[in-house]
Amino acid sequence: MKREIDYSLYLVTDRGACREKGMLELIGEAVAGGASLVQLREKEAGTAEFLSLAREVLDLLRPLGVPLLINDRVDVALAAGADGVHVGQDDMPVRDVRRLAGDSMLVGLTVNSLEQVLEAEALPVDYLGAGPAFATRSKQTSKPVLGPRGIQHLRSHTTRPLVAIGGIDAENAGEIIRAGADGIAVISALCSSGSPRLAAETLLRAVRDGRST
Amino acid sequence: MKREIDYSLYLVTDRGACREKGMLELIGEAVAGGASLVQLREKEAGTAEFLSLAREVLDLLRPLGVPLLINDRVDVALAAGADGVHVGQDDMPVRDVRRLAGDSMLVGLTVNSLEQVLEAEALPVDYLGAGPAFATRSKQTSKPVLGPRGIQHLRSHTTRPLVAIGGIDAENAGEIIRAGADGIAVISALCSSGSPRLAAETLLRAVRDGRST
Repeated sequence: MKREIDYSLYLVTDRGACREKGMLELIGEAVAGGASLVQLREKEAGTAEFLSLAREVLDLLRPLGVPLLINDRVDVALAAGADGVHVGQDDMPVRDVRRLAGDSMLVGLTVNSLEQVLEAEALPVDYLGAGPAFATRSKQTSKPVLGPRGIQHLRSHTTRPLVAIGGIDAENAGEIIRAGADGIAVISALCSSGSPRLAAETLLRAVRDGRST
Repeated sequence: MKREIDYSLYLVTDRGACREKGMLELIGEAVAGGASLVQLREKEAGTAEFLSLAREVLDLLRPLGVPLLINDRVDVALAAGADGVHVGQDDMPVRDVRRLAGDSMLVGLTVNSLEQVLEAEALPVDYLGAGPAFATRSKQTSKPVLGPRGIQHLRSHTTRPLVAIGGIDAENAGEIIRAGADGIAVISALCSSGSPRLAAETLLRAVRDGRST
């Protein structure tokens, strides 16, 4: 059985956007500030390097009870013993991911449209990452911005946990939560901050404020 | 138990070097000409595309009894049901690969030096890919060229099947086989040929001639 996952504040790493600090230091600070879930995304690293980093991050997160997901690479997730895998629409199909990863791993899927949300209803996914919520600089994309109304629309067609991603900051996090997202995923908002810990605290406050209004 | 593998002529694909023909057509022709083993190497493709191609190639190769190995991506190999995985020194460590891939999959490892050959003796690998045998254009590398003497030197320190790779063509294949290689791996020599089938036949003849002299 899977444990209850807290999707409130989901840190997605990006070596490009997170260049200022060491990855472990960044993750440690973000988690100290309240990040409840971490996804390692390493599109450039070799497999050995990716796996080695995943193991270091797991050593950091395990004692804190914060789950680690691996972007795209089921093999890295399995070898490291990570808590899950997050895949996009161009990554390994979810059914294959589930078959390899087993029932106990978390599997997340990126969705950009209602069609993909509806498709996902039949798939063995644990949560949806919906985006881009707003225009974003950290991930180049040509996909249409959903905005709070788009998030609300997708939300109304699924009962799965839904995490919004893309251009979310402390200013706009509240409206995304009020639109029905279970949490927010952030890259730049934490990576580019001088104090990822403070940034995480501020974002988490915005999420909680959004829930209570 | 693993079946006996014929390492004589090992085709390694490279989308860059193999752009002229469709990948399936190229592989089909190369195998018709005698290629005895195929490795799919897709450093640029997304995982979904890589997996989809792997499945198409397996459909082609299965009836012919030619094994398919996947470069680097154990997850793609597992999802597709490929016959094995080939990893380089910067890919997933061999022990992790073996743990994920199980005993029945072929696992190959690239070695560039005596040190790596000796390390590999303690690892659960089925064969070694030793190179670069000669200077090569299809894979950018700063590693020192081994030449026939280097191949011979590595050969004398392992009993594992050893396939030489890098800059091998019909002219120099014989000396590599006489140096003790069990087979040759080629990229450009097949990909860039107007007739991969004829090129494969010529290369295989050179391998056989090398064995008998």
